[in-house]
Amino acid sequence: MTDNTLDPTRVVLLGLGDMGAAFGRAWLAAGRPLTAWNRTASRAEPLAAAGADVAVDPAAAVAAGRLIVTCLLDDASVGSVLEGVDLTGKDLVDITTGTPEEARARAEWATARGARFVSGGIMAVPPMVGVAESGAYTFYSGSTEAFAEHEKTLAVPTGTRFSGEDPGLAALLDVALLSAMNGMFAGITHAFALTRRSGVPLGEVAGLLEGWVGAMLSDAAGGFAERLEGGDLTTGVVSNLAMQSQGYDTQLRTAEEQGMSTELLRPYADLMERHVADGHGDQDGAGLVDRLLRDPA
Amino acid sequence: MTDNTLDPTRVVLLGLGDMGAAFGRAWLAAGRPLTAWNRTASRAEPLAAAGADVAVDPAAAVAAGRLIVTCLLDDASVGSVLEGVDLTGKDLVDITTGTPEEARARAEWATARGARFVSGGIMAVPPMVGVAESGAYTFYSGSTEAFAEHEKTLAVPTGTRFSGEDPGLAALLDVALLSAMNGMFAGITHAFALTRRSGVPLGEVAGLLEGWVGAMLSDAAGGFAERLEGGDLTTGVVSNLAMQSQGYDTQLRTAEEQGMSTELLRPYADLMERHVADGHGDQDGAGLVDRLLRDPA
Ligand SMILES: NC(=O)c1ccc[n+]([C@@H]2O[C@H](COP(=O)([O-])OP(=O)(O)OC[C@H]3O[C@@H](n4cnc5c(N)ncnc54)[C@H](OP(=O)(O)O)[C@@H]3O)[C@@H](O)[C@H]2O)c1
Ligand SMILES: NC(=O)c1ccc[n+]([C@@H]2O[C@H](COP(=O)([O-])OP(=O)(O)OC[C@H]3O[C@@H](n4cnc5c(N)ncnc54)[C@H](OP(=O)(O)O)[C@@H]3O)[C@@H](O)[C@H]2O)c1
Repeated sequence: MTDNTLDPTRVVLLGLGDMGAAFGRAWLAAGRPLTAWNRTASRAEPLAAAGADVAVDPAAAVAAGRLIVTCLLDDASVGSVLEGVDLTGKDLVDITTGTPEEARARAEWATARGARFVSGGIMAVPPMVGVAESGAYTFYSGSTEAFAEHEKTLAVPTGTRFSGEDPGLAALLDVALLSAMNGMFAGITHAFALTRRSGVPLGEVAGLLEGWVGAMLSDAAGGFAERLEGGDLTTGVVSNLAMQSQGYDTQLRTAEEQGMSTELLRPYADLMERHVADGHGDQDGAGLVDRLLRDPA
Repeated sequence: MTDNTLDPTRVVLLGLGDMGAAFGRAWLAAGRPLTAWNRTASRAEPLAAAGADVAVDPAAAVAAGRLIVTCLLDDASVGSVLEGVDLTGKDLVDITTGTPEEARARAEWATARGARFVSGGIMAVPPMVGVAESGAYTFYSGSTEAFAEHEKTLAVPTGTRFSGEDPGLAALLDVALLSAMNGMFAGITHAFALTRRSGVPLGEVAGLLEGWVGAMLSDAAGGFAERLEGGDLTTGVVSNLAMQSQGYDTQLRTAEEQGMSTELLRPYADLMERHVADGHGDQDGAGLVDRLLRDPA
């Protein structure tokens, strides 16, 4: 049951670190009433100057509104900040990064305390927040009703993508994209190291990487999805693993020639090699997806 | 010295595997006279049907023209195919994949035999060859004069990018882009595995990956180049390694929750951790580039 005596447009924001403060500034800039709290009180001052009401403790903050947004270090800090605070009739939107299981457990915890729960996964860095053209967005999942009620408010700092009722979905998609990004980072780190002493200007290397890796990303993401969806891992394959695995040898030897660490290259090579050895050299990278789910490491 | 008694527009192509045949078809389609040879003679038949002259052995092929293109399995096969063949006055363009050191050694070898040498690194799969709008291109490096003389011919199957006199540069850039691509592949493989059982349609995951990883690629490639170029690894940093390294923990735990292998995630995490432990938590991923050159592994 939601508490209808409170201003439905007010946002209560707990956690004014770099990200929380960016969300808070965006709401204030859009004219939303904001009640803010932070463990280290001094961090609330810039928001107060911009018009926020600053609460003395989490309980006082939570009492001021219906929509409660937590943007804290980790899931454990959400539990400790809200420990003993009355959440009856509140809508708790937790945009703290965590795992899917943490989000599901936090959803149960919040529901048991009489609140509706939505979990968020922010796909942005703070300077992108509140900047419409930045492309920043946040995954949300959990209570469809609570999300629908606050969608307009949540859409102020970043775009929104509601992924479903499972409160773990937002975290899962968030983590999936970050993991993929880190793979790409590992790849370009290796590439910059390889070319670092070649005399080729770094800006030129950057442009080549952007063009090539971007084109292969588009091809592979769609191609992998198609082959996994259809359950046919060999039709539509252009570069099969047998060939890729052989080609990898040139990549490893080139890194060795440069006297540099091959640590970022090895695990994908090892995974391909195992899959080829098991007789799947006619598949492409899509065939490695389910293998990762089978091979514990 | 080039042999001017031979038709300068004729291409001699040694190696008619998937890639060699694609290059050959493109030249024939553009009306270029082509002399072709392949170890397994039957593979020359489709090109012969399309108008190529088929030579009985490498020596006969090489004698037919001035521009000699080799597209063989690896550098060793180039050496063995051209063993004892007279290369005086020839321009040898070797588009076989190899390492930079192999290309440099092959350049010396060819020069000692009286030929000018250009090495190529093909950024395409065979179906992209001869298709102008495919974006396919080939890095070339080595003899500037030989490249300039044959540039129009070489530009028929794919676009061309001449990288400089060092015959190893084409291979270096080729391998750098392929290594970066493989990092990206590892990342999206992990992401697809993570979301495989979530019920989120794979096509939707593909679209999210394309958008997010693509945007981060553009940011990071340019940002890394700028910070490495300027020698200042902390200015302009938006996501520092201390924070990224901490956030990585959520990614590892999420993979563990899904019961899947974390093998593709670990090496970048380890590298970041070592760099943060050494006091560089205020840098971002750009700071890892030179570390890879220092840390042997
Ligand atoms: N920054 C980013 O680029 C980014 C991007 C996407 C997602 N996120 C996520 O957003 C969340 C916040 O990140 P941030 O960048 O704002 O981090 P931050 O600047 O380090 O701020 C952390 C916040 O958590 C508070 N906190 C930590 N432990 C606490 C505890 N035990 N009790 C009460 N408060 C506690 C801090 O309070 P004090 O001020 O008192 O220390 C501060 O408000 C994290 O989950 C992060 O993963 C951040
Ligand atoms: N395919 C791609 O997607 C791709 C992309 C970029 C670069 N490349 C590079 O292009 C080159 C050729 O690749 P491909 O796809 O055409 O490979 P392929 O289909 O396996 O063909 C290999 C070619 O090398 C010949 N060969 C192998 N060992 C030989 C030897 N000892 N003596 C004489 N000939 C020998 C083969 O002759 P037989 O027919 O007699 O076996 C065949 O003509 C490789 O360096 C590859 O890395 C390929």
